[in-house]
Amino acid sequence: MSKKSLAILMRARMRPNDPTKFPHISQFPKEIPSNPQENRSRDRILLKSTQETGNSSDFSSSRRVYDVVCETMHSAISASKTGVLDITLNDFQEGYFSLSLEDREKLLLVLAKEYDVNREQVRELVKQYLGLENPASDDKEALASVFYRIERNLRHALKPTYEVLFERLNTHPGGLRFLCILRADLLSILTKENTPSLRTLDSYLKEKLGMWLSPATLELHQITWDDPASLLEKIVAYEAVHPISNLLDLKRRLGIGRRCFGYFHPSIPGEPLIFIEVALMETVAQTIQEVLWDNPPIPENQATCALFYSISSTQPGLAGINLGKFLIKRVITLVKKDMPHVSTFATLSPIPGFMQWLISKLSSQSRFAEDERGTQSNSPSSTFSEKILLPEEEQALMGLSDESSSSSNGMEVLLNLLSVKNCEWATSPRILPVLEPILMRLCARYLLQEKKRGKALDSVANFHLQNGAMVERINWTADRSEKGIHQSGGIMVNYVYRLENIEDYAQSYFESGKIHASPGIHSRL
Amino acid sequence: MSKKSLAILMRARMRPNDPTKFPHISQFPKEIPSNPQENRSRDRILLKSTQETGNSSDFSSSRRVYDVVCETMHSAISASKTGVLDITLNDFQEGYFSLSLEDREKLLLVLAKEYDVNREQVRELVKQYLGLENPASDDKEALASVFYRIERNLRHALKPTYEVLFERLNTHPGGLRFLCILRADLLSILTKENTPSLRTLDSYLKEKLGMWLSPATLELHQITWDDPASLLEKIVAYEAVHPISNLLDLKRRLGIGRRCFGYFHPSIPGEPLIFIEVALMETVAQTIQEVLWDNPPIPENQATCALFYSISSTQPGLAGINLGKFLIKRVITLVKKDMPHVSTFATLSPIPGFMQWLISKLSSQSRFAEDERGTQSNSPSSTFSEKILLPEEEQALMGLSDESSSSSNGMEVLLNLLSVKNCEWATSPRILPVLEPILMRLCARYLLQEKKRGKALDSVANFHLQNGAMVERINWTADRSEKGIHQSGGIMVNYVYRLENIEDYAQSYFESGKIHASPGIHSRL
Repeated sequence: MSKKSLAILMRARMRPNDPTKFPHISQFPKEIPSNPQENRSRDRILLKSTQETGNSSDFSSSRRVYDVVCETMHSAISASKTGVLDITLNDFQEGYFSLSLEDREKLLLVLAKEYDVNREQVRELVKQYLGLENPASDDKEALASVFYRIERNLRHALKPTYEVLFERLNTHPGGLRFLCILRADLLSILTKENTPSLRTLDSYLKEKLGMWLSPATLELHQITWDDPASLLEKIVAYEAVHPISNLLDLKRRLGIGRRCFGYFHPSIPGEPLIFIEVALMETVAQTIQEVLWDNPPIPENQATCALFYSISSTQPGLAGINLGKFLIKRVITLVKKDMPHVSTFATLSPIPGFMQWLISKLSSQSRFAEDERGTQSNSPSSTFSEKILLPEEEQALMGLSDESSSSSNGMEVLLNLLSVKNCEWATSPRILPVLEPILMRLCARYLLQEKKRGKALDSVANFHLQNGAMVERINWTADRSEKGIHQSGGIMVNYVYRLENIEDYAQSYFESGKIHASPGIHSRL
Repeated sequence: MSKKSLAILMRARMRPNDPTKFPHISQFPKEIPSNPQENRSRDRILLKSTQETGNSSDFSSSRRVYDVVCETMHSAISASKTGVLDITLNDFQEGYFSLSLEDREKLLLVLAKEYDVNREQVRELVKQYLGLENPASDDKEALASVFYRIERNLRHALKPTYEVLFERLNTHPGGLRFLCILRADLLSILTKENTPSLRTLDSYLKEKLGMWLSPATLELHQITWDDPASLLEKIVAYEAVHPISNLLDLKRRLGIGRRCFGYFHPSIPGEPLIFIEVALMETVAQTIQEVLWDNPPIPENQATCALFYSISSTQPGLAGINLGKFLIKRVITLVKKDMPHVSTFATLSPIPGFMQWLISKLSSQSRFAEDERGTQSNSPSSTFSEKILLPEEEQALMGLSDESSSSSNGMEVLLNLLSVKNCEWATSPRILPVLEPILMRLCARYLLQEKKRGKALDSVANFHLQNGAMVERINWTADRSEKGIHQSGGIMVNYVYRLENIEDYAQSYFESGKIHASPGIHSRL
């Protein structure tokens, strides 16, 4: 066995990430392995008996399972015995997985509300703190001591009680991973019901996870064909940008002219938290096809460009924690050191929000236009209306709509074309050349000018811009996959990282939302 | 190159730990490598010019270096540009190493006092919090929101400003290691001058380090002869219990019948934070000689006992952070899994404080005895006096002192014998048999009954007891090295970890200071 596999085996036991993907663990196992010498807690026995009473779809039974899990949670927080605690934490994790999302929500609400900050204690300390305003003593160091003491106590009192559960799970084998799943649940619950207590629970957990998964604790590892199959399998499962079709495809992505790097955490072994795929190219690639299908693109020593063509994070529960930033910076440093002849670091990125934005823009503007035609006046809606298309684009589109007389303007023609389910336009030699300049111009506008809270509306754009990249070029028919056409009309974008500008660009984007872009893309606007 | 060495190379660059051991870095390097494209900060230029002005022993020059380092520290805390920050943090680290311990103390005082909690802000928030006592609104969730918000703000306001420096260093390459050194300095300063502000700085840093080095972030790795020499060299350098005499000795400790495990952190690569040496034995060893010199002790498949004969931590700056506890627990699990025939987990441990305690006890009691002889009355001192020796021991010792008439009682005889510099008693066939029962009895008393704040007085005893071990047996002439005789009269102790009792024992020791011990050792009292 290789040293590395051994090292991986030597780490803490792991638990599969997504219980829905591993249905066998979303129920209690028939026999929970445990040390026979350890006393089984009452909860444990309760759990087992609950299981044995019959079908978990039975309401009173699932009610009972919920109660037991809730009680286990209580023990996990209040227990002082570290030994029993290990069993309790295992029970809690197993129990949690057996709950429906509805019951999980109930449980998390209990956690958020009943294990909150101890407000009595905070109030008491806060009063003491204010009492220090008129110090009786002139001794400065002595006074400082009192401040230090109360501040420390106040700091501890302000920690919600549920922090204990998070802390204990963090140091428990498999616990960090469990917390990622718990937060993923929390996020999905919050999309439906945004209660302040759950929001606070989430932001507290997010802060903790961000701390525990700080770059100082992450290890960069180059993933190769020599890695264990169990790891490679995860790469296939989690590749979110350009799905891996088969083993050959995977082997190609790990072979000559390519690199794959992952960030690993000691507590979540055998699985990267985030990974990035790199192709070594002669020039910045314009289409994903030339990246994915050429084998290898060019001899490695002729490469001048490292192209990041895919970044996938594996844990939905780590949303909002930017792991990729440090990953990209470290990979750039590493590749640069390894291959000094590589001078350009670029991406070939999807534009996941472009079509959605364009279609919704077109439909709202069509509605405004219709309203205006109806009222023949300056109705209030007109303040929101805008000219999306240039006069020549309007004309070209109307030229396409000869036969279908129902469309009264270019926006409607475009909307109709783009809304057809199987995206016929993308394969039509008549329509394609007409749409190209229009979609490319609108895409440049979408990337450079459409913002939300001062940041790029497109999530991938926002990711790279906050990391210090600039928008270099957009590429027509760069991704002809169904997904590519559907998301962005097949357009892809190259972001470029220039070492000398990364920090300045990140900073100005952070401070003022400034998006740096090449003259070429500016000229499209 | 092996995969592991590659993995180590791939990690962040490291900085030697103890600047006194690596004098070449305790001064600024002539040329600090940096990216020429990055702007050099004013501080950097200042630093360099300071260096070039001449001898650092010159007072005004070292004054100036101090000022620059202090200013760099300020930039490192207040800078918002992450790019410049990397350079600033490097400069701060380099600069800090160039300071004398005296200047470091001054700098740390500035850090503790001028970058403390923002009390104005805390007071403001505290007042707002108290203002919430009479809620105007009956809406519970809305009220909760306000509480959550102020509590979060208060939590952030209560963080001292110096936390920023700690956090930034933690995510900076080499920074975690630097923080360990900084805390080691802090601890050594505190032994001389225990000011509340420095104590608070230390306890805050300790808490942070404990969090960043939580077991979840540590990786257990078996250290073998196949590991890089740079790692093995560290093992030799840091082995604190039984010094490694030469390469052959090291090879034996990593060879058949032995194991060595270390805890590693991704940010401090190539060096364990703590490591443990294990010998596989047929029975629990009574002397360190049989552990260290037999080669190998027995065939591995005949082993029934895993003997932990040495645990060394490498970072003085991590004092008070119990890394060994989790290490022992994980090593036991690992060995058990690997070799099910091993059923006993024991230590052969030094008793570092025994002789020191005994000699100080004997001298204070001799003084009391003398006082009593002088006053011939119940002087106040007599309330502290106690019979250390049993009548038969008194007699046996007086029997030894025939020739030296100066000693008026057994305690004095014993004190004189033990105080002789070269420990003649330990090689004298006449004295040794007399001392054996006396020292063994007193040693059992020292281990089981002498406490400080309710915990075992002996630091190694306290370590194993808090981990859940019991005191099994003490062994006469178990360590005949000079150090062994000097520390504990050559006595060593076996602590035993029984899997089924570890948690209970740890808990009762934690709660009430109860020390579990075998009947054999109890009978010696």
